[in-house]
Amino acid sequence: MLDNFFNPQTIAVIGASRTSGKVGHDILKNLIQYGYQGAIYPINPEAPEILGLKAYPSILDVPGQIGLAVIAVPPKSVLEVVVQCGNKGIDSAVIITAGFKESGLEGTKLEDELVRKAKESGVRFIGPNCLGIIDSHSRINASFAKGMPEKGNIGFFSQSGALGIAVLDLALSEGIGLSKFVSMGNKADISDEEIMLALSEDDNTKVILGYIEGIRDGKKFVEIASQVSKKKPLIILKSGITSSGIKAASSHTGALAGREISFDAAFKQSGVIRAQTVGELFNYALAFANQPLPQGPNVAIITNSGGPGILAADACDKLGLQLVPLHKDIVDKLRSFLPPYASFYNPVDILGDATAERYEKALYTVVQDDKVNAILVLLTPTAVVDVEGTAKVIANISHIIDKPVLTSFMGKKSVEAGTKILMKYNVPNYSYPEHAVSSLNTMFKYNLWIKKHEEVYPTFNNAREKVRDTFECLNNEKREHLRESEVYEVLDAYGFLQPKSLLARTPEEAVAAAKGIGYPVVMKILSPHVIHKSDIGGVRMNINSKKEVENAFFDITTRVRHVVPNAHINGVMIQEMISGGKEVIIGITKDAQFGHMVMFGLGGIYVEVLKDVSFRIVPLSKDDAHEMIRETKVFPLLRGVRGEAEADIEAIENSLLILSQMALDFPQIIEAEINPLLVKKRGEGVVAIDARFIIGGD
Amino acid sequence: MLDNFFNPQTIAVIGASRTSGKVGHDILKNLIQYGYQGAIYPINPEAPEILGLKAYPSILDVPGQIGLAVIAVPPKSVLEVVVQCGNKGIDSAVIITAGFKESGLEGTKLEDELVRKAKESGVRFIGPNCLGIIDSHSRINASFAKGMPEKGNIGFFSQSGALGIAVLDLALSEGIGLSKFVSMGNKADISDEEIMLALSEDDNTKVILGYIEGIRDGKKFVEIASQVSKKKPLIILKSGITSSGIKAASSHTGALAGREISFDAAFKQSGVIRAQTVGELFNYALAFANQPLPQGPNVAIITNSGGPGILAADACDKLGLQLVPLHKDIVDKLRSFLPPYASFYNPVDILGDATAERYEKALYTVVQDDKVNAILVLLTPTAVVDVEGTAKVIANISHIIDKPVLTSFMGKKSVEAGTKILMKYNVPNYSYPEHAVSSLNTMFKYNLWIKKHEEVYPTFNNAREKVRDTFECLNNEKREHLRESEVYEVLDAYGFLQPKSLLARTPEEAVAAAKGIGYPVVMKILSPHVIHKSDIGGVRMNINSKKEVENAFFDITTRVRHVVPNAHINGVMIQEMISGGKEVIIGITKDAQFGHMVMFGLGGIYVEVLKDVSFRIVPLSKDDAHEMIRETKVFPLLRGVRGEAEADIEAIENSLLILSQMALDFPQIIEAEINPLLVKKRGEGVVAIDARFIIGGD
Repeated sequence: MLDNFFNPQTIAVIGASRTSGKVGHDILKNLIQYGYQGAIYPINPEAPEILGLKAYPSILDVPGQIGLAVIAVPPKSVLEVVVQCGNKGIDSAVIITAGFKESGLEGTKLEDELVRKAKESGVRFIGPNCLGIIDSHSRINASFAKGMPEKGNIGFFSQSGALGIAVLDLALSEGIGLSKFVSMGNKADISDEEIMLALSEDDNTKVILGYIEGIRDGKKFVEIASQVSKKKPLIILKSGITSSGIKAASSHTGALAGREISFDAAFKQSGVIRAQTVGELFNYALAFANQPLPQGPNVAIITNSGGPGILAADACDKLGLQLVPLHKDIVDKLRSFLPPYASFYNPVDILGDATAERYEKALYTVVQDDKVNAILVLLTPTAVVDVEGTAKVIANISHIIDKPVLTSFMGKKSVEAGTKILMKYNVPNYSYPEHAVSSLNTMFKYNLWIKKHEEVYPTFNNAREKVRDTFECLNNEKREHLRESEVYEVLDAYGFLQPKSLLARTPEEAVAAAKGIGYPVVMKILSPHVIHKSDIGGVRMNINSKKEVENAFFDITTRVRHVVPNAHINGVMIQEMISGGKEVIIGITKDAQFGHMVMFGLGGIYVEVLKDVSFRIVPLSKDDAHEMIRETKVFPLLRGVRGEAEADIEAIENSLLILSQMALDFPQIIEAEINPLLVKKRGEGVVAIDARFIIGGD
Repeated sequence: MLDNFFNPQTIAVIGASRTSGKVGHDILKNLIQYGYQGAIYPINPEAPEILGLKAYPSILDVPGQIGLAVIAVPPKSVLEVVVQCGNKGIDSAVIITAGFKESGLEGTKLEDELVRKAKESGVRFIGPNCLGIIDSHSRINASFAKGMPEKGNIGFFSQSGALGIAVLDLALSEGIGLSKFVSMGNKADISDEEIMLALSEDDNTKVILGYIEGIRDGKKFVEIASQVSKKKPLIILKSGITSSGIKAASSHTGALAGREISFDAAFKQSGVIRAQTVGELFNYALAFANQPLPQGPNVAIITNSGGPGILAADACDKLGLQLVPLHKDIVDKLRSFLPPYASFYNPVDILGDATAERYEKALYTVVQDDKVNAILVLLTPTAVVDVEGTAKVIANISHIIDKPVLTSFMGKKSVEAGTKILMKYNVPNYSYPEHAVSSLNTMFKYNLWIKKHEEVYPTFNNAREKVRDTFECLNNEKREHLRESEVYEVLDAYGFLQPKSLLARTPEEAVAAAKGIGYPVVMKILSPHVIHKSDIGGVRMNINSKKEVENAFFDITTRVRHVVPNAHINGVMIQEMISGGKEVIIGITKDAQFGHMVMFGLGGIYVEVLKDVSFRIVPLSKDDAHEMIRETKVFPLLRGVRGEAEADIEAIENSLLILSQMALDFPQIIEAEINPLLVKKRGEGVVAIDARFIIGGD
């Protein structure tokens, strides 16, 4: 994919310049200097030669074919150049030039025009307003960044050029290899998703890192990210998540910054590993790039000092990794060669005078414990420690076993010689044990993700046809709310049980209805002009006798007439009163970026005060429904506390999947909420007590 | 304080050795090499001279006085040496030797003996089992660590020698200056609290850092830490907080690792800044050591690129720092010299081609906004940026203003020249913007702490005498629970309102009592042999008539007789049934390290499932009571949601303070719980519905 970007036969630099420091000069220089092997054509209408290469007035003057065009001409000329590219048969371009959407209204128009022209001309492009691209394997440095990262297996794409520069500088300084680097700029044509796909198919890339501020098409993102993350770890730093952040994001690239909640759901559903800081991006990447995945949560720690061992143990505990007790045989073996004051349990403390040999023996012994899935080796630079020797033995053992080994050689200068060796032999080292632990945890979580069985997306086929007319009629009538009877009909079509209910137009009918349904009953006004029924006294609960029914009928109708004098009153709904069970809220909302999302929360103050809700983007898989219930803090209440019976959790899951289907069937739903959905005991199902729907255009 | 440790006239190294690599050699060498100016006496029974200094067979042979003894002889000889120290009139010693409490039962005995002997001999000591101490100002390096940190204003003490080594190495590598370094070892004599006090009185120390695994005396810790933290920031990394961590801690130093919850309360109450990782310890220290405190939460960000600006804005938002909108005049001024594409709002984006001069002007303009309390300057190494020049202008401005300026020059090699300049001129630089923000936030929080008005500890004096006999009689009877009537008496003495209640021995008495109290009533069995009344059907609620009282009386007594055949039944309590209001739980628990703590939580599942409770260590100040209610997640429920009336929060605060007093009055309380405490509307107080007390020995 995108072959002509990362493996072109020839490259033209359009806007190549003789003046050092100019972007068009620096790109050309980078291409030459870092060893690109194909032909390079500087394009400059005035210079006959630049940096020793023959220059051409325009690409049309270049004799042979051109694989990739790198464009660094002024913004107004970019459109013309792109058309020329099309004429020359160039299908791939990197547009460095700034002055488009990021610069205001004028620029936005220019960018729109650019997209149109490029499409007409058959030219796909990265940018505009970007730093360029780098491929360390095909030796292409088509960027104006300083330096070229070492060959490596980490692919990185960034919406922010500046952050890209900082990351490149870090990679260069620390000797971290990158496979590809792509500065995405305004993403006017080639999208994050396309780059993610290209990196997922790139044999040189083992881990994919990305920095994004906003995305264009949420659905597409989830679809592609899920696909990519099943093949390779996809680690993303997403900014602009908070209110201040969003302000900054909008003034920066004009990208519509996503709401935290929808991105969170999207990342969860698509297996994206979310980094919270640039530091985490690197920490995680190093672990994935260099070590196998842990097959379970069990960690063993080997250390030459207690303090760091405790810090690491604390960190494991916080994240849910297990400090597994070592097998008796392993403990015995450790005891056979470690000094008596050592700790033979986990963390294994091999003491401050530990030699490289002692580290080697301890590590070699511990890895043989079948229960241990990952090993963390800690070292503090005590007076007698052999930093280099220890690094070597760790590297050696790490190469012959299939469990991840991560290290934290603490300190700096005293351990540098060791950490360089570790780095060289693919053992990721972290200055602080906590970072090693969080990286390990991320690997463990990712392993769970890729081992997850195929997602199941159940469908419920019958409902749509039944209520299609209801939704369409709404559209014709320009109404936004479904009426009571329509709500009943829709919920019924989708298989939701609802309380028995009958419409009564007179007190007598009401009494008959109540008798038929069985006491106690609930009575509610039914009027197209009354939406918030209970606010105006239009609802009465727990009605137990004929007398009470008659009184309530009179009360309700009088009050409604009083408060909404012109309301048309259809009558009073007599409804079965269902008690017992737990009240939950389920619903559908529509997010600007990701479209419909399904929500779950326990009813009442749990939602209002604690905001203890979970979201998933439509369509929901069975796993999604399963997980979203369990990730709320109040989940134990559904399981039953203090000897209570377990609620019918499966029925809630099913209800969430039905809502997902409903959102697919009727995209015009802007908001839907069943509140409360009464959940009975396990096996006894749920009842939709009340619901409302807000509908927009298609 | 501890003058002879940090400023002795002369130093003896007892156990000085001629053999390089031996601890007794390395310490002597460090003392000489790093420029200690007083006389140094190597003590060695066999060598006439070590490292060019005349050696003595014992300290008793040294002609003059000795200020500090550094002891590195084998464990068995330490006791004798300490006695000699006493004889020689030495009052201060650093005991490096290991093989004491950390090594098992034998060592523990030896350590106890050491403590006794030292006390008898009038010798105070640091250690044993430690790395030694360093004072960069008096040029004392009485440790076997490699290297000597630069002079600085950060004081550091560490329970873990190895972590101390790692920290020293980091400080040395990064050029971070330390004032004092103390390896605490087993803390057999001189405690964390004494060192904290000494550092707080040390003019060379501006910030105090500590690493602790466990403490000896929780009350003392809170008392001293509160005192110290009002003078200087006290930043502590506490490990062993989680279950795995505790295991590691116990096997390491034998220190009793504290429970997370009590340490959390202790740190909050004493203004300790808690670092979660070694990295945070340094990040925070650098900010405090070099910059003034921000006087408010308002931050301005200046950046040469959007991405990092957003990341910083996100971080501010997460922590509650404000990206304050700049004053119109400031924006106008910025607009007058910044390029048109720049962002004149906060974050101020001065664009990728920003020169040092542009940074200078922007920074100088922004600091003049009165609302801005702190400034964060971000820089990414774009092609044209002048890293060194920019560092210089930031340093210059930082020196003439009284607001904190923190920087994040991102990347590494490309910005190194700049970060060195920043470091030299006391502007803390962070590789990632998020770390700068969290450090700033910590400074802001600390400023709130030191500005807090004097703590108020209300006392309630009358109660103790009234119920002293009750508690004492319990002790004599070897009972653990207070009886119903005793609970009533105790709560009453401490001013808790309780439901009206009367004891009835016959159905007739019950009916009369209910009539007197007023329906509805609650009826409860009263028997010294029945603790969990409701479990065996000994409680009936909501009793509304004479008939129901009679039935209930019969029912309750029959059931109790059936379930607990030999129970002595005093009768049935007839109690006013109080409804309305919110149920909370308040209580007292006893922590192994910190003694009594007072707990607050909203009743029912909030405590059981959500664990939404807060703790403070006794005695509670008014602020403590105020804050602990507000830090629970369900606090909004007390304020009233959906138009509900506000609960009487002040009455809860008062109740918590009373419990604090109660714990002081009766230290034999092991556990007390008022559950539920019914909280009525604001101004209407609280009622203690039910309570239980568990009492131990004094």
